[in-house]
Amino acid sequence: MNVAFINPFLSSLVNVLTTMANIEVTFDKPHLKTDNKSMGDVTGIIGMAGEKIKGSLAISFSESAILDITSRMLGEKIEKLDETVIDMVGEITNMVTGGAKKELVQQGFKFELAIPMMVTGKGHIVMHKTNGPIVVIPFKVESGEFFVEVCFNK
Amino acid sequence: MNVAFINPFLSSLVNVLTTMANIEVTFDKPHLKTDNKSMGDVTGIIGMAGEKIKGSLAISFSESAILDITSRMLGEKIEKLDETVIDMVGEITNMVTGGAKKELVQQGFKFELAIPMMVTGKGHIVMHKTNGPIVVIPFKVESGEFFVEVCFNK
Repeated sequence: MNVAFINPFLSSLVNVLTTMANIEVTFDKPHLKTDNKSMGDVTGIIGMAGEKIKGSLAISFSESAILDITSRMLGEKIEKLDETVIDMVGEITNMVTGGAKKELVQQGFKFELAIPMMVTGKGHIVMHKTNGPIVVIPFKVESGEFFVEVCFNK
Repeated sequence: MNVAFINPFLSSLVNVLTTMANIEVTFDKPHLKTDNKSMGDVTGIIGMAGEKIKGSLAISFSESAILDITSRMLGEKIEKLDETVIDMVGEITNMVTGGAKKELVQQGFKFELAIPMMVTGKGHIVMHKTNGPIVVIPFKVESGEFFVEVCFNK
């Protein structure tokens, strides 16, 4: 696992949530995904593509966590997983990968970001079709859990 | 809607399925997506990214359609939406966009493909975060329906 690829996503996500949602975020040690068991209620997905680098990122939120995060970002209580929340998941996905990309470009890794997509549906599962390792980073806020999956082709 | 962008995906998908699965595919007229109601049982997703072009593609299959298509591609009866089927959805997504990309590059549109992702979960919904139109192409095989969504940023 190339930590140089993972750390920028980790720090960018913490940065986005602490500054935009003013929320305390903790995370567990990143680990390699060994099964397809990770599930979320709403997931932001984005592709990363350059001539030499191909990757994918997914941020899967539990309903409780994303309702809390969106409420804090918008400054009003959101109680339903509606289009506003789903759009915010796309926005967060964009901001996190945009921040990470900036750092990775400085390290010499060149790629562009595709259009974010959002998936809803209770307990859906997202899989990456890759020959490289898939790194999972479990995050926690007081209201719930979410996790980030990042992978790049070998 | 720029037909030049859409036709290569349409012809590539028909080409992949008729040659690899030896199956008869028909499609309805492509139309603009006006709501987020389209649902599938398993979806292949891929990002497309260049310096000037950013896009996303989703192919959502009903369970009956993808079981039939996978059975035909592998030459054995597949009756369960298992990892083999899900992997095949990623493979089809890759082949369809790879074929379309070849044609689009010849037309002067430059972009790279990201890593495909696959989503499972009964009745999940996929949304694209874009400022451009989302084009939906409904497909039919004898065993069921599926649809392709393509979008590019303005």
